[in-house]
Amino acid sequence: MTFAPDRDRLFPVDPATRSRARDLHASVADLPIISPHGHVDPRILVEDRAFDNAADLLIRDDHYVTRLMHSAGIGLERLGVSPHDGMAARPREVWRTFSENWDLYTGTASGYWLRSILAEQFGLSEHPSSANADAVFDEIGARLAEPSFRPRALFRTYGIELLATTDDPMDDLAPHAMLAADPAFGGRVVPTFRPDAYLAPTSPGWAQRVSRLSEWNGTRDTDYAGYLSALEGRRAYFIQHGAVSADHGVAQPRAIELDASDAARLFEKAHAGTITTDEASVFSAHMLFEMARMSTRDGLVMTVHPGVFRNHDHETFTRFGPDSGHDIPVATEYVNALRPLLNRFGNTPDFHLVLFSVDETTYSREIAPLAGYYPAVFIGAPWWFLDAPDAGLRFRAAVTETAGFSRGSGFIDDTRAFMSIPVRHDMSRRLDAAFLARLVGEGRIDQPQAERTIVDLVDAQPRRVFKL
Amino acid sequence: MTFAPDRDRLFPVDPATRSRARDLHASVADLPIISPHGHVDPRILVEDRAFDNAADLLIRDDHYVTRLMHSAGIGLERLGVSPHDGMAARPREVWRTFSENWDLYTGTASGYWLRSILAEQFGLSEHPSSANADAVFDEIGARLAEPSFRPRALFRTYGIELLATTDDPMDDLAPHAMLAADPAFGGRVVPTFRPDAYLAPTSPGWAQRVSRLSEWNGTRDTDYAGYLSALEGRRAYFIQHGAVSADHGVAQPRAIELDASDAARLFEKAHAGTITTDEASVFSAHMLFEMARMSTRDGLVMTVHPGVFRNHDHETFTRFGPDSGHDIPVATEYVNALRPLLNRFGNTPDFHLVLFSVDETTYSREIAPLAGYYPAVFIGAPWWFLDAPDAGLRFRAAVTETAGFSRGSGFIDDTRAFMSIPVRHDMSRRLDAAFLARLVGEGRIDQPQAERTIVDLVDAQPRRVFKL
Amino acid sequence: MTFAPDRDRLFPVDPATRSRARDLHASVADLPIISPHGHVDPRILVEDRAFDNAADLLIRDDHYVTRLMHSAGIGLERLGVSPHDGMAARPREVWRTFSENWDLYTGTASGYWLRSILAEQFGLSEHPSSANADAVFDEIGARLAEPSFRPRALFRTYGIELLATTDDPMDDLAPHAMLAADPAFGGRVVPTFRPDAYLAPTSPGWAQRVSRLSEWNGTRDTDYAGYLSALEGRRAYFIQHGAVSADHGVAQPRAIELDASDAARLFEKAHAGTITTDEASVFSAHMLFEMARMSTRDGLVMTVHPGVFRNHDHETFTRFGPDSGHDIPVATEYVNALRPLLNRFGNTPDFHLVLFSVDETTYSREIAPLAGYYPAVFIGAPWWFLDAPDAGLRFRAAVTETAGFSRGSGFIDDTRAFMSIPVRHDMSRRLDAAFLARLVGEGRIDQPQAERTIVDLVDAQPRRVFKL
Repeated sequence: MTFAPDRDRLFPVDPATRSRARDLHASVADLPIISPHGHVDPRILVEDRAFDNAADLLIRDDHYVTRLMHSAGIGLERLGVSPHDGMAARPREVWRTFSENWDLYTGTASGYWLRSILAEQFGLSEHPSSANADAVFDEIGARLAEPSFRPRALFRTYGIELLATTDDPMDDLAPHAMLAADPAFGGRVVPTFRPDAYLAPTSPGWAQRVSRLSEWNGTRDTDYAGYLSALEGRRAYFIQHGAVSADHGVAQPRAIELDASDAARLFEKAHAGTITTDEASVFSAHMLFEMARMSTRDGLVMTVHPGVFRNHDHETFTRFGPDSGHDIPVATEYVNALRPLLNRFGNTPDFHLVLFSVDETTYSREIAPLAGYYPAVFIGAPWWFLDAPDAGLRFRAAVTETAGFSRGSGFIDDTRAFMSIPVRHDMSRRLDAAFLARLVGEGRIDQPQAERTIVDLVDAQPRRVFKL
Repeated sequence: MTFAPDRDRLFPVDPATRSRARDLHASVADLPIISPHGHVDPRILVEDRAFDNAADLLIRDDHYVTRLMHSAGIGLERLGVSPHDGMAARPREVWRTFSENWDLYTGTASGYWLRSILAEQFGLSEHPSSANADAVFDEIGARLAEPSFRPRALFRTYGIELLATTDDPMDDLAPHAMLAADPAFGGRVVPTFRPDAYLAPTSPGWAQRVSRLSEWNGTRDTDYAGYLSALEGRRAYFIQHGAVSADHGVAQPRAIELDASDAARLFEKAHAGTITTDEASVFSAHMLFEMARMSTRDGLVMTVHPGVFRNHDHETFTRFGPDSGHDIPVATEYVNALRPLLNRFGNTPDFHLVLFSVDETTYSREIAPLAGYYPAVFIGAPWWFLDAPDAGLRFRAAVTETAGFSRGSGFIDDTRAFMSIPVRHDMSRRLDAAFLARLVGEGRIDQPQAERTIVDLVDAQPRRVFKL
Repeated sequence: MTFAPDRDRLFPVDPATRSRARDLHASVADLPIISPHGHVDPRILVEDRAFDNAADLLIRDDHYVTRLMHSAGIGLERLGVSPHDGMAARPREVWRTFSENWDLYTGTASGYWLRSILAEQFGLSEHPSSANADAVFDEIGARLAEPSFRPRALFRTYGIELLATTDDPMDDLAPHAMLAADPAFGGRVVPTFRPDAYLAPTSPGWAQRVSRLSEWNGTRDTDYAGYLSALEGRRAYFIQHGAVSADHGVAQPRAIELDASDAARLFEKAHAGTITTDEASVFSAHMLFEMARMSTRDGLVMTVHPGVFRNHDHETFTRFGPDSGHDIPVATEYVNALRPLLNRFGNTPDFHLVLFSVDETTYSREIAPLAGYYPAVFIGAPWWFLDAPDAGLRFRAAVTETAGFSRGSGFIDDTRAFMSIPVRHDMSRRLDAAFLARLVGEGRIDQPQAERTIVDLVDAQPRRVFKL
């Protein structure tokens, strides 16, 4: 029993199907990584400093990982996350805690990714444990100090052709500009326009954000038309810096078209602080509609990541802030909620709307049927809690029979864990190989179709959907 | 690599299970086709003319097929569908467009059906492509001119014992009468009473339809009692013409019992155009209840196909009318919504209520538990977007453990694509063989149980449920 | 073809995976049964009388079994269930009816359990049938008269270490006390506090129940504080009698914290019969919150079994009372509904909240994400309609990738069918072996992880979650 991952991992157990999957995977295993949506901080590539240590790199900032230890009663401060009211544990202690709790990850997606990283990237030969925690921490530390483990070196080693980050609309995008201007780098790192906090009057700090927008735009911050033009201006700024998409993390994917005077009236009420919750929700839905309209004009691909109850645990949110592991999916509805938007823009040439979901029930019921009709709609790859082996195969089985392979977004890693990028893309390629191998085995497609399809899924499809 | 479908298609990849599935399938492969619900136009069998060409027959009228090309940006007029405001492409061009886009169907249910039709019925030896489009179009055209490809010849070749159509309540059913009276035909083609547009005051043209009903019945069109008696009369007319079921395509499966005076009051408001949307919804729900009551008296099996947002794309609906490929499923609720109906008629002897769904979540949660208790309730076979290999196996796995095999409707092809009828029934038989073979392999049933069950599913069950 | 169950039943069909599953199962097949939630009547163990006959034991009281015959049009009185207005069939007749209808159970979970019981516990060698009904009835009767088939003997044979019953808060728990005091017994049989009928003002007889509570407590029955203290007192009484958990069968898992004065006001309105339906729902939700608060103090594990429409068929309910087979699942929502409770107690040390579901959609979307973050939350094992082979594997696949194995409740049989206890636990162990064997085969975990995990699932996990 070795710690190195099985070379046939994620392939079906039936020997003939496994062999077919292995060959399909081999045909795409070395294709470049296209990562059109994710949360890596671009400054790590600008600065290109060595990562500090195993805990900061692999544990602290990955809420997929910290949340499961939290469920075991381990406070986030013990995992290196700094609370507003205290101190975080030191990295070596964090690694010890993680190593002691390694069994928690058995069978999980995070466990799969971590094992690949530890074994394949760091060359570890045994499972993390109390016994080896210090030694492994030191060993990883030593590797991280090597030039080949610098961010840019890894970027090249991983074969990343494109990496998209996710950014605040008022971000100056200086890191992106520096990377683009740096002949020594050569990679493509593009920003993504993520305006949620500027569109929802209920978002904390909305008014201040709108003021900053207006100030940048030279318009009054109570002027709805100025607000729209500022958003358009910032989108243009992002496009100048390479952006290909705008991302929308709305609670529900609801779009409403208000006429300009009604929208302006709600905008003013929002600014005056007199808007009701219902009105604020209508205004946000209207702004989702406006974002679609802008996308039809400026060409940014519109991605929607809805259906998450953000910051569910008030206590942890107060102490540790957002993205600390307690965002929880909720039931999501697309068909009625998006109809105004789709009736207006669903057939607009070159408008691309990628619908993600953390509610699996919507795959066969709503998203595949919508994407199998509207030229604008694409099916977002399995996202977040669903970005995992069994969930990934359920996704393919749920959408393919209705919408085929041409309506998918291509894989999206959506990660802030830099070292997991190649592992996640490889996982996706393995699952596609497994799925296609089964279809061939069941006589539903033939081998040449499978061979063409897997290359399309990895290569042509994301380029087409994200206009790369 | 040949274009002919794998003879073991849809069977599990495990060799022993596959062998068992093959034998189970063989035992039912040649049984007659019972098709108690579908959308074939009966006039094709009355006229028995040769089909015009491949495009009109296989593409234009099959919205499962056109919708996916529409998603690729191909307007429906290019697929032969005539818009109100323009011209449709000629059949040969349609076939070229389809052939160029054949890859869209890889892995889809439509792709599976089309391949079977092209290879097994027309003897094609290669995938459709730009290169072979014209030749294939001509080849199919030549075959269609042969006597063995006339509708009646195919009806016999397919082994169709019963074919149900779907009809407007005021339809004169002349084609059905002609077929029944024609000793040269010999097949059984029966109408299905589909009264949705007469029951929902929000349906466009409702008042005129009610007027026609009343006129036929010799009663005033504002007379609720007359309206009910007219509906009963038309049901009787359908029964005289062989109908075995009444079908209900409601938005949600909601039933309410109003007392007659309240119902009459809403009926009058509907007629006067003063009914509110909520009241109209209550009236429609009341009429679903009344349809159940009528079924308990006249014996028509009540089938319900709920949970579809019809004509989602306003633009396409305006140009091309209904059934043009943009009906989209929505979440559906049965347990609360149908309780009034089930409390009144759920135990009524000989009342049969078949619940279909395009919301898979309801299979294990609602429909199987209801059908596993109420003698009236049967589980509709996987419908529409769910009538596909993986979805079909998910369906069986979702309902069988709760409700066994005796509570299913038997397979229903629900198709307007005449040549797909034998392929769809064969697909269903293959999936049942695959499912049963797995249960045997897993020691959950034994071989004789599997052998009895598959014959029941194909033969006895639809006869029993649809009172044939 | 023999009637004896396949020794490899429920294991995957792939030979290598099957072999691995067989070994994993063997490692836990003989571990003691821990049954922390169920509905066995403890008096059968106190009295230790021979069971009367096959029909009373296996058919009449098992609504999983009676419901499916009911769906075939067989009235419950013919299955031995006594209506308020008539007579039930005699046991021998019931057994004949069941035997004639044995095919109904093909492929069902009940069919699987019954076959195991009949073949393995009673040694039957053929399927029940009309032909053998009388002989089998007599044969089982003869076995039941043997000392080894007395309840206590079976309890020992089954290897039951702990059996929890489900009890009314005002139950005197005399059977539990007698069993605990009986040195001849030696087993551990503990009560479970199930207060639903005391917490929901809409529950029939609520006021009388509250009066009995208050009387026992020596407080006024209109005194909200006294009501709370009485509930606390009864919980303490249960704990004295060995209880480890309190169970909550709420319609929806909704928790609200009212301040004491608002709660008292609603309590008084409920008592006066002037509470509205909405207010009653708010009060019930508040009481779920209060139950959590009490659990944080007295340590009872809080289990929630929500999302069931109880007594759906009014006619059967009127004639036969509750638990007669027509409770039907409905869509269930946890994330918003439980947030007040989780924000208050989700991180409270030693508070355990086990969330069950009959709505499968919640496994990956809500319950696994909640349990993978909140230390208090555990994932209830597949329940009721979902306690079946395919559903059990879907459950594991839905929750494991997010939450691993450490957040599950351990298996819970939830049964009132005493003889099905070992079969159900064995089924669960086989499914876990099958699931783990697949993960090993797919290279997602290694063999030692699988070996540790299956022992944890059967042994350590239920002890930890239920504080045994």
